[in-house]
Amino acid sequence: MRIDAAVLRELRGIVGADHVRDADGDVAAYARDATPLFSAMPGAVVHPGSAEEVAAVLALATAHGVPVVPRGAGSNLCAATVPLSGGIVLVLTRLDRILEISAEELLAVVQPGVTSAELAGAAAKHGLLYAPDPGSRTVATVGGTIATCAGGLRGLKYGVTRNYVLGLEAVLPTGEIVRTGGRLWKDVAGYDLTRLLTGSEGTLGVITEATVALTPAPETTGTGLAYFATLADAGRAVARVIGSGIVPATLEFLDAKCVAAVEDYAGLGLRLDAGALLLFGDDGAAAPVADHLARMAEICLAEGAMEATVAGAAAESEALLAARRCALPALSRLGSVTILEDASVPRPRIAEMVDRIDALAVRHGLTIATFGHAGDGNLHPTCVVEAGDTDAVERAHHAFADIFRAAMELGGTITGEHGVGAAKLPYLAERLGEDQMALLRRIKAAFDPAGILNPGKLGS
Amino acid sequence: MRIDAAVLRELRGIVGADHVRDADGDVAAYARDATPLFSAMPGAVVHPGSAEEVAAVLALATAHGVPVVPRGAGSNLCAATVPLSGGIVLVLTRLDRILEISAEELLAVVQPGVTSAELAGAAAKHGLLYAPDPGSRTVATVGGTIATCAGGLRGLKYGVTRNYVLGLEAVLPTGEIVRTGGRLWKDVAGYDLTRLLTGSEGTLGVITEATVALTPAPETTGTGLAYFATLADAGRAVARVIGSGIVPATLEFLDAKCVAAVEDYAGLGLRLDAGALLLFGDDGAAAPVADHLARMAEICLAEGAMEATVAGAAAESEALLAARRCALPALSRLGSVTILEDASVPRPRIAEMVDRIDALAVRHGLTIATFGHAGDGNLHPTCVVEAGDTDAVERAHHAFADIFRAAMELGGTITGEHGVGAAKLPYLAERLGEDQMALLRRIKAAFDPAGILNPGKLGS
Repeated sequence: MRIDAAVLRELRGIVGADHVRDADGDVAAYARDATPLFSAMPGAVVHPGSAEEVAAVLALATAHGVPVVPRGAGSNLCAATVPLSGGIVLVLTRLDRILEISAEELLAVVQPGVTSAELAGAAAKHGLLYAPDPGSRTVATVGGTIATCAGGLRGLKYGVTRNYVLGLEAVLPTGEIVRTGGRLWKDVAGYDLTRLLTGSEGTLGVITEATVALTPAPETTGTGLAYFATLADAGRAVARVIGSGIVPATLEFLDAKCVAAVEDYAGLGLRLDAGALLLFGDDGAAAPVADHLARMAEICLAEGAMEATVAGAAAESEALLAARRCALPALSRLGSVTILEDASVPRPRIAEMVDRIDALAVRHGLTIATFGHAGDGNLHPTCVVEAGDTDAVERAHHAFADIFRAAMELGGTITGEHGVGAAKLPYLAERLGEDQMALLRRIKAAFDPAGILNPGKLGS
Repeated sequence: MRIDAAVLRELRGIVGADHVRDADGDVAAYARDATPLFSAMPGAVVHPGSAEEVAAVLALATAHGVPVVPRGAGSNLCAATVPLSGGIVLVLTRLDRILEISAEELLAVVQPGVTSAELAGAAAKHGLLYAPDPGSRTVATVGGTIATCAGGLRGLKYGVTRNYVLGLEAVLPTGEIVRTGGRLWKDVAGYDLTRLLTGSEGTLGVITEATVALTPAPETTGTGLAYFATLADAGRAVARVIGSGIVPATLEFLDAKCVAAVEDYAGLGLRLDAGALLLFGDDGAAAPVADHLARMAEICLAEGAMEATVAGAAAESEALLAARRCALPALSRLGSVTILEDASVPRPRIAEMVDRIDALAVRHGLTIATFGHAGDGNLHPTCVVEAGDTDAVERAHHAFADIFRAAMELGGTITGEHGVGAAKLPYLAERLGEDQMALLRRIKAAFDPAGILNPGKLGS
């Protein structure tokens, strides 16, 4: 949707002429986010410099019925920030200050445009940990990770983003600035709008400030690696680890296809005769971490691991983790389009789910490799195709529809940590049911009567 | 409000005649909950036996505009379950089954009428911990603790109820049964209705089943005790404990008035010459727990503690914790009405807040003793008056209004863990602002168009 000239003038009056772009060449970069195959041109790109400017932009947009898509780095993988109906892309990256880090109160106050890695780095200087660690953390903004309730590798032990958001300043689509929660671990004054905004994917309000919880940085971190003949063997080891009373900080797996791709890409010396690779790790005080690592290695061997190693030093740990970090770039080399998907199943069903994914890949004539978070059942089946091969792209869509259905059949969900956006919206009713979909639409309307905020996404 | 005879007949048809009471003598017990000074007669008390019966009752109530107040044990302290507008009190205690405890998945599935203590006990048999531990846990139902997002003594280290609710089955006021979340740590499919219902105090839906997260039971638990000349000294010790990288499982304080009352009540041999008593404790692997306890005792002494002791054995730990557990019964003996209040401030402001409470007690001519959770800044100023002394009751209301205002001035909130209910609603707008109050009302209307569910509470 093109934006009326009078509205553009008003936008320039609010944020300054330098911070409004509407030339095709300037706005084209905001037609996409990190999700392949989704694209739509915005009418204008606006970079506000304060919550008050955000409020004025939203009030104007509501008055004129102009769609507004809030966006940070656009690193999401569910097309949550693609401007499906055109209008304004509201980019929050100018709000990029860390306002406070309090070691005494174990919290930080940040603007939404700070990246997750910047926040984690600033916290680390105070001996503190910001636990949420999505794979995109070097570019993903804190505002974006809150809007999508981002996960990461530490889900089972540390929880996800929602567990760390103490309070928000947010602008409603109608222009009011509200503050939810605050600096307190315990605050039950009112409905939990902090958590409702977290994960609302820019459809209910625009986050302009966040107060997040930090924890003391762990004294030590350790990692180990085990190879198994099958993912089912690895799954049994995972179950026995959890059953033994250990809640590990890291529990990641790669299937054989991922291991082969990573070895081909990075030459790490991984074994190519295994059916699955399991990375396990923990953090905390030195003695229990060493004990947990030794016990996890023992359990892996007892469950038939071909080999299990515990890293001796930090550098060695990093080398082991490199296998997991390389998974996505290694797979991406196999074709021009990488569809990195996201589904969760209950932990005991992981091996069964990967079997189903493999069978679906064969049935649809595709290459789908799977890695993921064994601790919390969150899988990332990844399909690589050529952009020009429209038939393969079409088959991939069908395969993923079948994969989401399989996850739901096993008691799982269509998205563990990437979000719904435009990409998963077609599957949401199947997950939630029509009654809950109708409720989502009524909640959306309670926040956004004119329906201007990120239309065509959650709540539509 | 009296209930129409035709509606009563329909109610009896839904749940069976045995489970509907409308005689004054039968319903009078449901005019109150654990909150002093609030009372209102219901027209009927209904005990449903299934989610389907709850759905039929709510659909009927919406059709006829009959208020419905969902209730578990009624142990809340904010008049959340007092039927202000009469109508139906819907008691969920027949739904009292633990449906599943999975050590492999670290979760439990329970009906709402199970008590917190029953759930914790069943989890313990599997070597697991259900972390939320409100003071009322032996009577409080899981449904009620979720509806109020109950806290407890472990807030800083373990978080509150919302951190443990994975999924809910709930009945909307219009009669639809929805399922939110599930068995997964990571699930971002849709708005976070699980958290929105948690803490909604029975105003948005009726919880009929909950899936909650469990953690492995800690290997050991240890406790220590320190006396300080002033609460300010204790506050500095708390700040240094947190600053040293320890996040203790227990960090509780009693002011001098509480210590005196407890000693008079229980004769535990507590020192009466101290200004504050601090209980500190931790749980986990034996070595770090012993290390944390020793370091916490050292820090207390370094910050001027008159004395600091670490309990040697479990029985000795229990003896120390008895001082905290006795605080409320000990204070209750001082008068016929005990108003146990609940406010939170940022941790560094605790001593300042207790000073303000003491000054307000003097100004209003009242006895107010304060104990609470030093780890998360959650204070329980407790005022004891005689029921017949209407002047003192009136002064207590004024004093608490001043206390809530003082908490907000210090960056705190009007309720950390007890909830808003009818008791705190008059102060909510001051905490949230009119824009957010209006948003709460719109959210309430999105769930409950006829306004039948717990009217006069949150969202009103």
